[in-house]
Amino acid sequence: MTNPADLPAAEAARRIAAGRLAPAALVEACLDRIAAREPVVRAFSSLEPALPRRAAARPHGGPLAGLPVGVKDVLDTADLPSEYGSPIWAGHRPRADASAVALTRAAGGIIMGKTVTTEFATRHPGPTSNPHDPARTPGGSSQGSAAGVAAGFFPLAFGTQTAGSVLRPAAYCGVTGFKPSHGLIHRAGMKVMSESLDTIGVFGRVVEDCALFAGALTRLDLTARAESAPRIALCFGPGESLLSPDSAARIEEVAERCARAGARVTRITLPPALQAVVQAHPVVMNGETALSLAWERATARALISPVLNERLDWAAGLPVAELIAARTAFAAGRQAFRALMDSFDVLLTAAAPSEAPLGLEATGDPACNALWTALHGPCISLPAGTGAAGMPLGVQLVAPFGEDAALLCWARWVEDVLTG
Amino acid sequence: MTNPADLPAAEAARRIAAGRLAPAALVEACLDRIAAREPVVRAFSSLEPALPRRAAARPHGGPLAGLPVGVKDVLDTADLPSEYGSPIWAGHRPRADASAVALTRAAGGIIMGKTVTTEFATRHPGPTSNPHDPARTPGGSSQGSAAGVAAGFFPLAFGTQTAGSVLRPAAYCGVTGFKPSHGLIHRAGMKVMSESLDTIGVFGRVVEDCALFAGALTRLDLTARAESAPRIALCFGPGESLLSPDSAARIEEVAERCARAGARVTRITLPPALQAVVQAHPVVMNGETALSLAWERATARALISPVLNERLDWAAGLPVAELIAARTAFAAGRQAFRALMDSFDVLLTAAAPSEAPLGLEATGDPACNALWTALHGPCISLPAGTGAAGMPLGVQLVAPFGEDAALLCWARWVEDVLTG
Repeated sequence: MTNPADLPAAEAARRIAAGRLAPAALVEACLDRIAAREPVVRAFSSLEPALPRRAAARPHGGPLAGLPVGVKDVLDTADLPSEYGSPIWAGHRPRADASAVALTRAAGGIIMGKTVTTEFATRHPGPTSNPHDPARTPGGSSQGSAAGVAAGFFPLAFGTQTAGSVLRPAAYCGVTGFKPSHGLIHRAGMKVMSESLDTIGVFGRVVEDCALFAGALTRLDLTARAESAPRIALCFGPGESLLSPDSAARIEEVAERCARAGARVTRITLPPALQAVVQAHPVVMNGETALSLAWERATARALISPVLNERLDWAAGLPVAELIAARTAFAAGRQAFRALMDSFDVLLTAAAPSEAPLGLEATGDPACNALWTALHGPCISLPAGTGAAGMPLGVQLVAPFGEDAALLCWARWVEDVLTG
Repeated sequence: MTNPADLPAAEAARRIAAGRLAPAALVEACLDRIAAREPVVRAFSSLEPALPRRAAARPHGGPLAGLPVGVKDVLDTADLPSEYGSPIWAGHRPRADASAVALTRAAGGIIMGKTVTTEFATRHPGPTSNPHDPARTPGGSSQGSAAGVAAGFFPLAFGTQTAGSVLRPAAYCGVTGFKPSHGLIHRAGMKVMSESLDTIGVFGRVVEDCALFAGALTRLDLTARAESAPRIALCFGPGESLLSPDSAARIEEVAERCARAGARVTRITLPPALQAVVQAHPVVMNGETALSLAWERATARALISPVLNERLDWAAGLPVAELIAARTAFAAGRQAFRALMDSFDVLLTAAAPSEAPLGLEATGDPACNALWTALHGPCISLPAGTGAAGMPLGVQLVAPFGEDAALLCWARWVEDVLTG
């Protein structure tokens, strides 16, 4: 019999609703797993077991009733510290929950704890290791959330994505990571860096978990199933030159399996308007992050990591016309992507350039993700077997802005192909 | 000789730069005015005179060197309470300054105090009265900031606008209110309600003040002067049916004066795509506000005003498809407005339906402003004489997204016509 800590969220929800699994038993199974593995995984920035125990003892209702949730520590919580991965915010206790956290509790979810984020969800990593190999990064910036779902600390978790901070760690950790359309989940109570890019996303074990969680937060019905096979755009860019041989081969293999299952697969290359978005992304991301951190830069520069100070100094020195031109390139790219996707249901590409790299001092490259984040559409990473080193690989599916329900529908179709 | 408290910010900046006005003398002139008039105007939610005095005693540099600034109390300040106009947040002391506040200090500005906002920048008013008549509202939601500039408490101030919360109080108080393009001023550290609509704006006495302040915050050069006369689209909608006779006559008169000065004025009506934005605005505003206040609604409902609870209950009960359709209407409206404005430099319309209404229990109608906020372009309210009751009237100028420098250029042209 499966340990409850290893159940997909949707399956756990069904057992809870049927009275076959008590929320308290699920929380205890997760706490047992945490006691066993957290010393190595280090997924939590704060954890007070009394809080989820108390929540599990209360009567539960709602679509997330009794499900433990990990909360990336860029989202405020009224009952736990919120430190944003920075010593500048050590010990910070917000008065309020972030909107997404409050909606989770209102839907019956149980906040398990705060999970490790890189510094302000940028590049400087926290202590989390990959549950599949403690010598490897879990990716970032949502590192504690991805690792925690993989390790069985909670079946659902929040991440946020500015470049590749949900999809990449999902791929590295062998879980499912879903970034909805920009703005679908309200950012009130989030430590926002790039207003143009930052998007709240979710982790689960399978696509259905992400659909359940995101659906509960947005009141959207994300559970539709496909009645036919999709038209798939197969795309190796923009990270193509960085793809490891096993990653590239896996994408080809997934595309072939989809084609055998009835999908129409067409290989495409990136039009110039999307290549321009790739070039514009770091300008917007770092330019807006430098503005967001104006107070920290003015009052606590010595407590910002050297790598972040260097990037923000670069961004703050750019002519403001470049920032405006970069945002204009984003807008043009979104139109071009929608036109491109007129002929396709979903785009298939890599979720990360390779398996999780060795070492915890860096979190890997978001080259496979930043473009799609800037295009504002939904994207999802699905586990797709293992690579040369035996670590998880992931594939990414992308759709245009607003096509969240359709993307999740096709993701379940691809998931069925991969697991069938 | 003009009391320094009554100087436009740009003129005060010139005198400070030339050594003809000491920042400390300007701050004391403002504090004297506050001592005389604040008991009736009630513009401040918090004021500690020692703080601006200390700031004025420090050496100053930067484009805002020595200029006192009022900060609407939806923007966080590390040294003053930030209560968002709600008893739920009474006594709240953030650790950090909002980005816009930190950038103001870095540019040499002196934070004078926090100014009264309506409840969460929505409709339920604070205690501020109109400096031109204490029996009348100063407008809202940025009521303390608009009233404070009018009363001589500070020459510059921050506001925020979701429907008409900068331009309407500017018109009612006889000052200049500028809402830049959406996203131009970063919202980190702001209590954001509607992510799609909320925009940080500024108040000054004249257009040049707003250009100085917004330019300092964004590093944009907003000081260009016109070398010819503009092509003006004269538009009475969408608030046309609400316009008082004196307001409607004033718009006609301003258009005639502009035409006599060389402008090509063409009367236009709103195309259907813009009328659809008017209908969609309350759905997006209230729908997103209900999400933003998820924690407050779940934990402190009794401390939310009845009028706000009623609106948010309505919004929370709408099918989510309506919220998504409303955002889609916004996107279509932005394209339609850009196409419409291909033939014009700037659109001229009313800034408010009438003079400031009697009574402090309501803040007036944003019907003249909500459409233009949703279109994401810059808009500005200029004083345009007085109405039937001797209270200020304002006219509004609007341009498409990103045309901030052009809008301010044409606004100075119109200002010259009106004051020349």
